[in-house]
Amino acid sequence: MKIVALAGGVGGAKLAHGLAQLLAPEDLTIIVNTGDDFEHLGMYISPDLDTVCYTLAGLANPETGWGRVNETWNTIANIEKLGGPNWFRLGDQDIATHLERTRRMKAGQSLSEVTKDFCSAWGIKHTILPMSDSPVRTMVDTDEGELAFQEYFVYRRCEPRVKGFRFDGVNSAEPAPGAREAIDSAGAIIICPSNPWVSVDPILRVIQKINNPVIAVSPIIGGKTVKGPAAKMYTELGIEPSALAVAEHYGNLLSGFVLDTVDGQLSDRIAACTLTTNTLMNNSSDRARLATDVLNFAGSL
Amino acid sequence: MKIVALAGGVGGAKLAHGLAQLLAPEDLTIIVNTGDDFEHLGMYISPDLDTVCYTLAGLANPETGWGRVNETWNTIANIEKLGGPNWFRLGDQDIATHLERTRRMKAGQSLSEVTKDFCSAWGIKHTILPMSDSPVRTMVDTDEGELAFQEYFVYRRCEPRVKGFRFDGVNSAEPAPGAREAIDSAGAIIICPSNPWVSVDPILRVIQKINNPVIAVSPIIGGKTVKGPAAKMYTELGIEPSALAVAEHYGNLLSGFVLDTVDGQLSDRIAACTLTTNTLMNNSSDRARLATDVLNFAGSL
Repeated sequence: MKIVALAGGVGGAKLAHGLAQLLAPEDLTIIVNTGDDFEHLGMYISPDLDTVCYTLAGLANPETGWGRVNETWNTIANIEKLGGPNWFRLGDQDIATHLERTRRMKAGQSLSEVTKDFCSAWGIKHTILPMSDSPVRTMVDTDEGELAFQEYFVYRRCEPRVKGFRFDGVNSAEPAPGAREAIDSAGAIIICPSNPWVSVDPILRVIQKINNPVIAVSPIIGGKTVKGPAAKMYTELGIEPSALAVAEHYGNLLSGFVLDTVDGQLSDRIAACTLTTNTLMNNSSDRARLATDVLNFAGSL
Repeated sequence: MKIVALAGGVGGAKLAHGLAQLLAPEDLTIIVNTGDDFEHLGMYISPDLDTVCYTLAGLANPETGWGRVNETWNTIANIEKLGGPNWFRLGDQDIATHLERTRRMKAGQSLSEVTKDFCSAWGIKHTILPMSDSPVRTMVDTDEGELAFQEYFVYRRCEPRVKGFRFDGVNSAEPAPGAREAIDSAGAIIICPSNPWVSVDPILRVIQKINNPVIAVSPIIGGKTVKGPAAKMYTELGIEPSALAVAEHYGNLLSGFVLDTVDGQLSDRIAACTLTTNTLMNNSSDRARLATDVLNFAGSL
């Protein structure tokens, strides 16, 4: 069965890595959110795409959830000494990705072409696609006004209260080449445990129509997120953060929903078929185990 | 006596450093060639300006003559893995300079404003000015056609035979703010031992009129350069490389000329007043010693 995984950063990258451990390269396409992309210090930075690529390549920093393992920080330390912006932490190896991507894009390559070349250089065999080659920019409406995503997320550390989201450019953004075909030929589309509001919604908005079965894995476990502001966002938007809220967020789109054993009591209230299992991924074998559960569940639907 | 030093990269930076050891901050202005500047990987790179700044700040790599001491190379190594350009060696600390300078220039700061702020951050008290805030680009006419300077110098390692030089943009380039005033109020202008063709000529072309005494220090010792292609350029242009050729290059501009003791026999053939002394600068005290000799010579003219 061919699988498409929709992923944001950390949590999405973990399940995508689990799926990549089980599926042949031709059977898995990972479509990644690019609503978080931004330009910083003149470089085109694609945080979710890099996290997914680094994770699949074994280059990710397991401590932070972002950036490279065995990283050094000499560039950013010196930018700091010169009074430059240091709020977005860029490692020396990571900067190579951004500089070379920016160079290629200025020379006319699309984001998906660059991503393909980088995956090849990093030894990644499965297909990783940005959701679109056109810019889509997630804007966060807050009690302090509208903020660009990284300004909200990193610079303001998610402190302003969220009132809503806007995906600038989404209406004119086509899915990246190959994304539509992958969706249409997939036996199942798996929504990884990523932030529904700011990681998955932008992808769904770009993809628009999905006719094949969709299974979502809850990023909320026991009312909390493993990482990131999804639970805080639900609360600020007046919704109690829970696996149930996530299932309701995706609504009719879902054929199946995967929630953690600690949330088992919620499964009766969820309209889709449910799988209750251990969804926490602390290590590489946890990722493969959850991926196995999700694939078996997909096969049973 | 107020002094203006005109400098290119390595040799120029060494004498400028010697002068800075002797002169009060308000008495020394260093005007630096920017004809070598170029854009690479989306960054504005100013090699001579950086070499002079790093040297005065004690941040220069004493082995290479360019770049930073205690440098790491993680960014360029990873750009290389991605198939990106690796011919221009950029260290991780050095990249911070280029990224932050580019960011500031895109935000509207001039090159001289950025340089002032960077000097302040690096603890440099003397004034370092780019020759101009307008782009001037040294183009090298060779037997393989015209090459941009860094393409000739670094990418092609000075291999093509030189036929001439062109300074693109020089006619419309104004001296950087303060340069004209510094030249006009200087007791002497010292041309550091830099390449006459590609380091000093661009500065002289921008400055145009100099009414105060000019003293040049020969970058050619015993027919050879300590570093760089000046001697090779003289040969390819049909001129025997020597201190005499350098003195003749500057011609009537010179009030005084400083040549090495090994070239003492040439001094009779030089029109300007000459000082014959040890011009080789192997360490910091050599720089101060030569600067002392040159300043005493300037005072005696």
